[in-house]
Amino acid sequence: MFLLVLYIIGITAEGMSGALIAGRYKMDLIGVLFIALAAAIGGGSVRDILFNHYPLTWVAHPEYIIIVCAAALLTTLIPSVIARLEKLFLVLDALGLVTFAVIGAEIARAQGLGVVLVVTSGVITAVFGGVLRDIFCGIVPLVFRKEFYAGVAILTSLIYYGLSLLEWDLEVASIVAVVSGFIIRILAIWYNFSVPVFSYGAKE
Amino acid sequence: MFLLVLYIIGITAEGMSGALIAGRYKMDLIGVLFIALAAAIGGGSVRDILFNHYPLTWVAHPEYIIIVCAAALLTTLIPSVIARLEKLFLVLDALGLVTFAVIGAEIARAQGLGVVLVVTSGVITAVFGGVLRDIFCGIVPLVFRKEFYAGVAILTSLIYYGLSLLEWDLEVASIVAVVSGFIIRILAIWYNFSVPVFSYGAKE
Amino acid sequence: MFLLVLYIIGITAEGMSGALIAGRYKMDLIGVLFIALAAAIGGGSVRDILFNHYPLTWVAHPEYIIIVCAAALLTTLIPSVIARLEKLFLVLDALGLVTFAVIGAEIARAQGLGVVLVVTSGVITAVFGGVLRDIFCGIVPLVFRKEFYAGVAILTSLIYYGLSLLEWDLEVASIVAVVSGFIIRILAIWYNFSVPVFSYGAKE
Repeated sequence: MFLLVLYIIGITAEGMSGALIAGRYKMDLIGVLFIALAAAIGGGSVRDILFNHYPLTWVAHPEYIIIVCAAALLTTLIPSVIARLEKLFLVLDALGLVTFAVIGAEIARAQGLGVVLVVTSGVITAVFGGVLRDIFCGIVPLVFRKEFYAGVAILTSLIYYGLSLLEWDLEVASIVAVVSGFIIRILAIWYNFSVPVFSYGAKE
Repeated sequence: MFLLVLYIIGITAEGMSGALIAGRYKMDLIGVLFIALAAAIGGGSVRDILFNHYPLTWVAHPEYIIIVCAAALLTTLIPSVIARLEKLFLVLDALGLVTFAVIGAEIARAQGLGVVLVVTSGVITAVFGGVLRDIFCGIVPLVFRKEFYAGVAILTSLIYYGLSLLEWDLEVASIVAVVSGFIIRILAIWYNFSVPVFSYGAKE
Repeated sequence: MFLLVLYIIGITAEGMSGALIAGRYKMDLIGVLFIALAAAIGGGSVRDILFNHYPLTWVAHPEYIIIVCAAALLTTLIPSVIARLEKLFLVLDALGLVTFAVIGAEIARAQGLGVVLVVTSGVITAVFGGVLRDIFCGIVPLVFRKEFYAGVAILTSLIYYGLSLLEWDLEVASIVAVVSGFIIRILAIWYNFSVPVFSYGAKE
């Protein structure tokens, strides 16, 4: 229930910021919807395909498609309002990131998979929407250059999985994982913390 | 039967124009085949993966792979002939677009899914081949900037689904949907009709 | 057994060279792991998704994820050592290419599929990791422009499938296919043999 509310906030926020990014590339309205959907529900779709977890979330709940499309259309009507809320969106994106990670981790855990796959599932859910969004816009995926973005998904998945191993109630574990992941992400933005970059033979 | 003939015309036309596009990027022959296959049967493959509709069309009917490869190879032998048929290909592409949309819509409808997913399935089938083709060529997918392209797929899927709700014979419904979608697409090209573009903060 | 050893060598080599390529695009460490994983196990994942062959290899054997990540991390520690081993990596990449092709061909053959799909499966397994790696790095996939790369995967798959039709022992058939494919690939590099390029209307 807690996760569901956060999930809907998360896909709405990702859909809106996806629409804003599409606006930079002058897509038509249908393109904007497509990019918003990729950003919001693409990560979960890739996870479900890789882990054979059918039906996909939005096939079972097509209302999520409508929510994301409505959020994207709203964004095209008042883009400057949305763009001015930049800080709010950083917070919502952080919430979405850690929520998606916990949901992904839980799906792998519920399939009886071990820590490597639980973390993989959490990270894919959390970051692959952004990867698809960027690829469809024709730009290099940004998520692997952003300050501690995928790293937060890893830590959040680990916290959730660790608490589940300790036989915590899963609802409580998800709340603790979301809150701690969120704090880590906000601190990472605040202090501009980042994972070391590997640069070798890079063209300037 | 009607759809099958149009489907084969559609994948042949998409394969040929995919090969022409690959030619612009100086691929080797195997790259050309790959791009042609992505353009012709990529959309249906993505749809089948998302909707858990196995086996994929070309796994059940590998002869489609051969048809597309033959069409692509023919294109590499007589590219200037094919390229001069530009108007014919606009027509064939329009036919393919609406045929793919109806096939996609029918697959979702036959799974008992509602209008949102029927349209989603129709659009994905119709446009995702072009999206994959462009991504594999390293260019930004054009389909979201083209005059009323994905929009035609939406309308065609809606017409087909509406007629099926009215309990029309599905064969008749598919003919009506293909013909009306085709007319809409040709009119859209003729009058250069397009979906509004959303441009916000675009770099010139 | 023979294939398993080669497979592990193959994913290690692809993971290392994937990490080196990621280094050219200044990714953070998590991005490097992601690119390495896409390069090493992406081709098999795409094959398994297309052919409905679940669970994916790395879901059944998460230790492969650890192997690839370890190889990629090692590469970031001693990139100049790895880069200086260029010729060794050409050899290992050739081994990986033909091993992946035989594994892919066998999976389709074991599903009772015919020659077209066996070759398709072999080629996808062998080259799609490189395609994904390049797309995630934001560059045009190189595999379709490289001297006789995908072509070697086709020939290797055909040799393996032909021997299986002759009712050779599958272990022996795979050894013969790997060895002959490897020799073809090395000769192709040596003599700079390539598939004809199709260039039409190319922008310079």
